[in-house]
Amino acid sequence: MTKLVLIRHGQSAWNLENRFTGWWDADLTEKGEAEARKAGQMLAALDADFRAGFTSVQTRAIRTLWLALTEMKRVWLPIEKDWHLNERHYGGLTGLDKAETAAKHGEEQVHVWRRSYDIPPPPLEVGSTYDLTPDPRYKGIDIPNTESLKTTLERVLPYWEQRIAPELIAGKDTLIAAHGNSLRALVKHLFRVPDDQITGVEIPTGNPLLIELDTNLKPVSVRYLDESRAQPLPPLP
Amino acid sequence: MTKLVLIRHGQSAWNLENRFTGWWDADLTEKGEAEARKAGQMLAALDADFRAGFTSVQTRAIRTLWLALTEMKRVWLPIEKDWHLNERHYGGLTGLDKAETAAKHGEEQVHVWRRSYDIPPPPLEVGSTYDLTPDPRYKGIDIPNTESLKTTLERVLPYWEQRIAPELIAGKDTLIAAHGNSLRALVKHLFRVPDDQITGVEIPTGNPLLIELDTNLKPVSVRYLDESRAQPLPPLP
Repeated sequence: MTKLVLIRHGQSAWNLENRFTGWWDADLTEKGEAEARKAGQMLAALDADFRAGFTSVQTRAIRTLWLALTEMKRVWLPIEKDWHLNERHYGGLTGLDKAETAAKHGEEQVHVWRRSYDIPPPPLEVGSTYDLTPDPRYKGIDIPNTESLKTTLERVLPYWEQRIAPELIAGKDTLIAAHGNSLRALVKHLFRVPDDQITGVEIPTGNPLLIELDTNLKPVSVRYLDESRAQPLPPLP
Repeated sequence: MTKLVLIRHGQSAWNLENRFTGWWDADLTEKGEAEARKAGQMLAALDADFRAGFTSVQTRAIRTLWLALTEMKRVWLPIEKDWHLNERHYGGLTGLDKAETAAKHGEEQVHVWRRSYDIPPPPLEVGSTYDLTPDPRYKGIDIPNTESLKTTLERVLPYWEQRIAPELIAGKDTLIAAHGNSLRALVKHLFRVPDDQITGVEIPTGNPLLIELDTNLKPVSVRYLDESRAQPLPPLP
């Protein structure tokens, strides 16, 4: 049985300001850092032998992993950072205050953008303050200008298959520190969650989700390490 | 011209206690962390486009790199951690107080172990407190039981050739955060420093050494970013 742990990064500056973040590189707040350390303390107490780590190229996820590994005294873990694990791109909503956006477009429309499986928000305008084209980390990468959960999943899954699954199949306990929607995409895949139910799955921040996988990468057990902050999980497939 | 920057980690707990450290995983002190942040601030001001990062599997070097990258707002840099960049293994001296060791073996003998090119200290005893065999990071690795600078160089260089040099040849500005002796080995190689002169080259902690290389990886310029804490450098080859 191989262990896979998913960690959603803790509070970021834009979570705190209630703005749509997506690919914007908001850093962790002090509260977010504390969440990451606590996740690391829980992981340190776990009977596991982590041999591979993955994260996005976004600061809040990378630093969550670093802070957790520091608590685990395992900073030497090999880590691969890749944009395929980034948060869903929020398109033209990036940077907007969530309450203001609801006032402008209506609660219902915003709910559709946030909770539908395959309807993306309007695209980010070229030349927007939030256009990431000049960011050196995305050099040579065709940055999306908006994403639905469906299109997020369509870029997370090939990365999972090519880079992460082989490590698990080789028997390596693996840590992934990422984002609400890139982790939701993985959960949808692993637990075969139907399209119309996946946006109801909410992974809490900084609460490591431990999934034990058999040799076919089929989940055989799943639980949050902090049971007091658990959210409902899909049934085992 | 490609930029290579070497950073020697800042003060560790055992530097402070004046103990031989080598492969033992002493962490940074607060002073060491501050040195790493300062190095990062100097690197942030440099006109460079770092695309590759390398470090050892030792906490003090990894955390030096992480702290520097945080200051540089470049935590997304790909980093490879490898034991070939570890500090020289201090054998049976590991863990000993430097003054006590000098009192026991004589100043002269300790000077030979520290400053000769090819004379290793006595080997670490099997079952010693400082035996790293049970450390999970070294699983499957044939850990040395002592090293001279020569044998350190003999494991640093193949790693340089196989993993680091190709990145530089591809034109990627590269950061290496490592240790006094693994960096000394690289400087010896790059600057063709004779055996009997290399132990006189002392790279200060937390002071990034900037080397510009031509397409044959021949150094064409070299300088410390903090000139006030510079040490003498070998001539360009």
